Amino acid sequence: MSDSSETSPESDVDEEIMEATYRALCEYGYADLTVKRIAEEYGKSTAAIHYHYDTKDDLLAAFLDYLLDRFVDTVHGVDVTDPDERLDLLLDRLLLDHVDRRDFLVAMLEMRAQAPHNEQFDAQFEANEEYIRYMLRTVISDGIDRGAFADVDAEHAARSLMTIVDGARTRAALLDTEETLTDARQTADEYVTAVLKADR
Amino acid sequence: MSDSSETSPESDVDEEIMEATYRALCEYGYADLTVKRIAEEYGKSTAAIHYHYDTKDDLLAAFLDYLLDRFVDTVHGVDVTDPDERLDLLLDRLLLDHVDRRDFLVAMLEMRAQAPHNEQFDAQFEANEEYIRYMLRTVISDGIDRGAFADVDAEHAARSLMTIVDGARTRAALLDTEETLTDARQTADEYVTAVLKADR
Repeated sequence: MSDSSETSPESDVDEEIMEATYRALCEYGYADLTVKRIAEEYGKSTAAIHYHYDTKDDLLAAFLDYLLDRFVDTVHGVDVTDPDERLDLLLDRLLLDHVDRRDFLVAMLEMRAQAPHNEQFDAQFEANEEYIRYMLRTVISDGIDRGAFADVDAEHAARSLMTIVDGARTRAALLDTEETLTDARQTADEYVTAVLKADR
Repeated sequence: MSDSSETSPESDVDEEIMEATYRALCEYGYADLTVKRIAEEYGKSTAAIHYHYDTKDDLLAAFLDYLLDRFVDTVHGVDVTDPDERLDLLLDRLLLDHVDRRDFLVAMLEMRAQAPHNEQFDAQFEANEEYIRYMLRTVISDGIDRGAFADVDAEHAARSLMTIVDGARTRAALLDTEETLTDARQTADEYVTAVLKADR
């Protein structure tokens, strides 16, 4: 683990390119995204980007990895150990972080739809899926051990919550974004209360 | 309502073109779909298709409408009035009908990702969404009136089930299709049992 208080110049560069990619993706969408447009957001030449990433797809696969890292950092940074509160926090982050960013959710849906034809995207989406499901499963298992949750199948419960999250994100790209996500947050809550905390 | 026992030659043509579109979408995916490839599946010239549909997008918007019609026909054709069984039937159809068609789910995800940039697709996906949500809401309301379901917000419960369906379809295009869909069918069942039938 690198010490985040001593950020190297190298990781500053990566962070800046990733932030430029996020802005360009929101502005142009996946289909019209070019390294040139990302370079414009970054404020440097395309060569400065290609020095770090050979192709646009390399850069976008790294961007998916960056999104996972950011998500993990946000969640790990919170000192909450109560399983119930921790699961709430995870679901808040997964469902409500992009409530005002329909453009971002549209771009992510486009990248997901590309994944079956793009090995790099496919592998990175699967890595993100597995790690987030692992986080959900761990907090559910811990809750079962501590008597906060019923004795459910933690792996299935984690998949159920991921299904609600993925459904909400797909729908939020097409329908009213804020309403869809807050409504799905309620659905996730109902699932947790009625299934995970049944008879608690 | 047209009498389905007296199918006109015109609707036979439409049906054949729609079936050819389905096969071509499964084989080539959305990105590589052309009117020429649909015509090959149809066994006629591209002119024979263009006689009915001006553009590929007109044809694909009609195809989305055809999918809704087929779904509605399947469900309306079943004489089940018990709210519980009818909701089960709807969820079986929505989640398990494409369990062996990952290629089709991939093509649908690609079309969905296009919708924010394509007015025809957007309008038709929204029409399908509204009608299927209406069917779910109606059966849930009926169940509440008849005491089979708890006094929940039927509109929200319908959205919750749609969120699970859309999540399952998005995930099934990327992960193990059969496992994802049968797992989500269980999630939908848990939601119905724990939330809709709580304290029944």
